[in-house]
Amino acid sequence: MSATAYEKLEQRFRRILILGDAGEALNWDYATMMPVGGGPARGEQLAELSAVRHALLTDTETADLLEEAAQDDSLNDWQSANVKAMRRKWAHATALSEDLVLAFSKACTACETVWRGARAENDFAAVLPHLEALLMLVRESARAKSEKLGLSPYDALLDEFEPGERSADIDIRFAELEAFLPGFLGTVLEKQQSDPAPPFPQGPFAAESQRQLGLKLMTALGFDFNHGRLDVSLHPFCGGTPDDVRITTRFDEDDFSSAMMGVLHETGHALYERGLPARWRYQPVGQALGMAVHESQSLLIEMQMSRSRGFLEFVAPLMREAFKGSGPAWDVEALYRNLIKVEPGLIRVDADEVTYPLHVILRYRLEKQMIAGDLALSDLPAAWNDGLENLLGIRPGSDREGCLQDIHWYDGAWGYFPTYTLGAMTAAQLYASALEDEPRISTGIPQGNFTPLTDWLVDNVHALGSLLSAATMVEKATGRPLNADAFTRHLKARYLG
Amino acid sequence: MSATAYEKLEQRFRRILILGDAGEALNWDYATMMPVGGGPARGEQLAELSAVRHALLTDTETADLLEEAAQDDSLNDWQSANVKAMRRKWAHATALSEDLVLAFSKACTACETVWRGARAENDFAAVLPHLEALLMLVRESARAKSEKLGLSPYDALLDEFEPGERSADIDIRFAELEAFLPGFLGTVLEKQQSDPAPPFPQGPFAAESQRQLGLKLMTALGFDFNHGRLDVSLHPFCGGTPDDVRITTRFDEDDFSSAMMGVLHETGHALYERGLPARWRYQPVGQALGMAVHESQSLLIEMQMSRSRGFLEFVAPLMREAFKGSGPAWDVEALYRNLIKVEPGLIRVDADEVTYPLHVILRYRLEKQMIAGDLALSDLPAAWNDGLENLLGIRPGSDREGCLQDIHWYDGAWGYFPTYTLGAMTAAQLYASALEDEPRISTGIPQGNFTPLTDWLVDNVHALGSLLSAATMVEKATGRPLNADAFTRHLKARYLG
Repeated sequence: MSATAYEKLEQRFRRILILGDAGEALNWDYATMMPVGGGPARGEQLAELSAVRHALLTDTETADLLEEAAQDDSLNDWQSANVKAMRRKWAHATALSEDLVLAFSKACTACETVWRGARAENDFAAVLPHLEALLMLVRESARAKSEKLGLSPYDALLDEFEPGERSADIDIRFAELEAFLPGFLGTVLEKQQSDPAPPFPQGPFAAESQRQLGLKLMTALGFDFNHGRLDVSLHPFCGGTPDDVRITTRFDEDDFSSAMMGVLHETGHALYERGLPARWRYQPVGQALGMAVHESQSLLIEMQMSRSRGFLEFVAPLMREAFKGSGPAWDVEALYRNLIKVEPGLIRVDADEVTYPLHVILRYRLEKQMIAGDLALSDLPAAWNDGLENLLGIRPGSDREGCLQDIHWYDGAWGYFPTYTLGAMTAAQLYASALEDEPRISTGIPQGNFTPLTDWLVDNVHALGSLLSAATMVEKATGRPLNADAFTRHLKARYLG
Repeated sequence: MSATAYEKLEQRFRRILILGDAGEALNWDYATMMPVGGGPARGEQLAELSAVRHALLTDTETADLLEEAAQDDSLNDWQSANVKAMRRKWAHATALSEDLVLAFSKACTACETVWRGARAENDFAAVLPHLEALLMLVRESARAKSEKLGLSPYDALLDEFEPGERSADIDIRFAELEAFLPGFLGTVLEKQQSDPAPPFPQGPFAAESQRQLGLKLMTALGFDFNHGRLDVSLHPFCGGTPDDVRITTRFDEDDFSSAMMGVLHETGHALYERGLPARWRYQPVGQALGMAVHESQSLLIEMQMSRSRGFLEFVAPLMREAFKGSGPAWDVEALYRNLIKVEPGLIRVDADEVTYPLHVILRYRLEKQMIAGDLALSDLPAAWNDGLENLLGIRPGSDREGCLQDIHWYDGAWGYFPTYTLGAMTAAQLYASALEDEPRISTGIPQGNFTPLTDWLVDNVHALGSLLSAATMVEKATGRPLNADAFTRHLKARYLG
C-alpha cells in the first residue's frame, strides 16, 4: 500500500523540523561557544539550512498534499490539528516571493548592524534611512501575507509569532490594563515609600556560587540534565531542542538575583520544551504554541511562583548557604521585598512586572501606527518620548534610552512585542487556576516540591503541543477566555496585600 | 548569459559542502558538549543532513552537469581538479541508495552511543548486536561501491578515506614494516634497558595548568584562537571547519605529556585545515587530501618535530614554569628520553611510534577479514588478543584493553586504520625534505620560531588543497614516491643513534 497524502506530509515536515533543530543547535553554539572569526561561516551554514527548509516547504508537491490531506476524513484530532499547523507554516512561507525574502533578510542585517553603532552613539538619524528601507519591506510583507491569509496587515505579521491572535482582542485587553495600571502604579509607589526599605544583601557574589545555586534550583524544578545544559551567554535564552534543552544566563557579581531569576525564567521555557508530546516530536502539532504561551511558561515560574513568599521560604536557606549570607538582609521577608520592588524606569528589559506592560503597550501602539503608515519614522523619537511620559510619567533624556533601546524593529521583528504582555496575562490566569485545582501546589512550594505544579503544567499545557489553539487551551485549562482579571488580581494581592 | 555546467556544479557543491560543515559543527558538539540524552535527536539531525546532501549529490542533474563539465576545455587546472574531485564524491555517493545512507548514519550513532557504555563496562556482548547490524550495512556499502568503482570491496571503502590508495600497495609497505619492526623493536628495548632510566617528573599535574601549557604551544605554532578552540573530549580529535577549527584533548593528572603531545598532534591537523586555500573554501578542490595526508600533518608536528631535542630545548622551560618543576627530571635530556621511551603496550593511542604500526597492522588485517566475511564478530575478541600477542608479544586481559578500545569500527569507520601508518611514513618523508630544503627550520625550533616550518607546509601541502593527488603532492614535495625508507631511517636515527 502506498503512503497517503497525510503520511507523505508527515515525512516531509519531519525532515523540515529536524533540519530546523539542527539550526537551533548551531545557533546555541553561535551564542555560547563559537570563536568570533567563525561568524561568516556559521552564517553560511544557517542560510543554507534555511534555504533547504524553505524549498521543502514551498515545493508545489507540498501544496498538492495539503489539499489532498484536507479531504481525508479518516484523520484523528491530532492528525487534523497537524495538517492545520502544516498549512499555516506553508501559507506563511509561500506568501512571500523569494526576492522579497532575500531583500528582507539583507535589510535586516544592514539595519541591525547600523543600529548597534547608532545605539552606542545615541544617533537615531544614522539608522533612520536603514529603518525606513526595512519598514518598507515589512509593510510589503504584511500586505502580501494579508492577502494570502485574509487578515489585516498587522495581524498577518502577528500571526507568525502568535498563531490565531488578533489585534482587535489585544486592543481590548491592553485598554483594560491601561485603564488600571497607571493609577495602580501610583498607589504601589506610595505604599512602598511609606514602608521602610528592606536591607539589601551585599556582594560580591562569585559567579561559580551563583551557577551552583542555579543548577540546584533547576534540579529542584525537574530540569533533566541528561537532556539539557546551563551555560553563559551575553543575552540569556532558552535554545536547543526538546531532547537537549540548553538554557543560558549571565552573572552579575553585585546582584545575584538577576541571574537567579533569569535561570528560573529560562527553566520555565525549558520545562515547556521538555514537556512537549514525544509522540509528535518532529511534527508541527508537537511543537510549542506561539511566543505568548512560551512566555507564559517562563513568567509563570519566574514572576508568579518564584517571587512568592512560599518560594522564598524554600530558596532563602539555599541563598544563605550559596553566598554565606547572614543577618537581616537574608531574612525571607527582606529577600521577598527586594524581589518585588517596583520602580518606573526607561528600559524595558529591566522593568518589574507592574511597569513592564506599559512599555509593551507603547511599542505595540507605535508599531501598529508605523505599519499602517500613520507615523513617519522621523517622528518616532518624539512619539516614543511623549508616549512613555504619558504612560509612566518619565521621559527619556536620549534616544539610546528611548526608541533605540530594543533590537526588535531594527532586526525585522514587527508584530512581536504584544506577546510579552499576553504571556504575563496568560501566566497569571493559568497559575491562579492551577492553585485552585491542586492545593498541593501551594503546600509543596515552600518544601521545594514542585511536582504538583509541573504535573499540572504538563497535563494542561505542555503535553498538548499545538493540538488546541492558544485561546482554547487557556479556556479549557482555566474555565474562561484569556482576559486581564487574573493578572490585575495578582498585582493587587502582591503589591497592595 | 546563463551559468555554465561548471558554474552550476560549483553552486551545487557549495551547498553540499556547507551543509557538511553544519554536520561537522554538530559532531563537535556531540563529542564535547551534548548531554547523553540528546543522542537520538542528534542522530536524527545528522542523518537528515546526510540524506539532504546525498540527494543533492546524486540528483540526475549532477550527473548531467559532470558529463558536460568534463567536455569544457576552458577550465584551468584548479577547476579541472575540482571537477575530478566532484566526480569522485559523486561516484561514491551514487553507489549507495538514500535508504542505505540513512540506515548507516543511524546505525553509527546507535552503535557508538552503546559503545561508550560498553567500553566503560568492559562488556563487548552489550555492543555486539549493534556492531553486527552496523557491519552488515558496511558490507552492503562495500559491495555497492565495489561495483560502481570497479574496486575490491575493501579498496572501495579505503578509497573514500584515502583517494587512490589500494590495499595491494599497503600490503607491500606493511610487509616491509612487519619484516623490520619486530626485530628493530627488540634492539631498541635492549638498548633502552642497558641505559639508566631517566628520572620521571612526578605529578599530580593540575588539568588547568596542562590546559594553559597547551594553549601556549598552540599559540606558538600559529593556531588562531579567533578561528578555533581547545576543549575536552573522551576521544581527542580535530573537528569543526577551516574557519572555526575545534581541537580537543583529555588530561591525565599523573602524566602531562600525553595531553601535551595530544594537543600538538591535533594542532598539526588544525594547521592543515586553516592553511587550505580560502579561495576554494566550499569546493571539493579546496578540501584536505585524504586521511593519510591529514595524519601526516599531525604526526609531522607531534612525532617528527615535537619529540626532537631541538623542540625540547624550547619547551622544557615552559614545562618547568607550568608545573613548577625543578631537578634532574626536568632537564632537556631527561624529558627527551621520557618522550621517546619505547614500550609495547595494549592501547594504540598510547603507543610510541615504533610499536604503533604494529597496532595498525593488526586492525588492518582484522577489518579486511571482517569485511570479507572471513571473521565473525563473536570471534573478534579472541582474534584480536591472539593477533596482538603474535605481533607485540603481549596479550590484553580484557576487551576494554582489546577490541573495545577504539571508536572507529563502532562509529562506522571501516577501511580507515591503515591511513595512520601511511600518515607516519608520509610525515617522515615530508619532514626530511623540509629540513633539507630550509635550514631555518632546524635553527628556528629551539627558539620557538616555527614559521619556517609552517610556511614550508603551507607552500608544499596545505595551500594546494586537493589540486594534486596525495601521491603526486608527496612526490613533488620530496622528489620521490612515498615509501618506508624515510620512516625507518628516522626510527634508526632517533632510537639507535
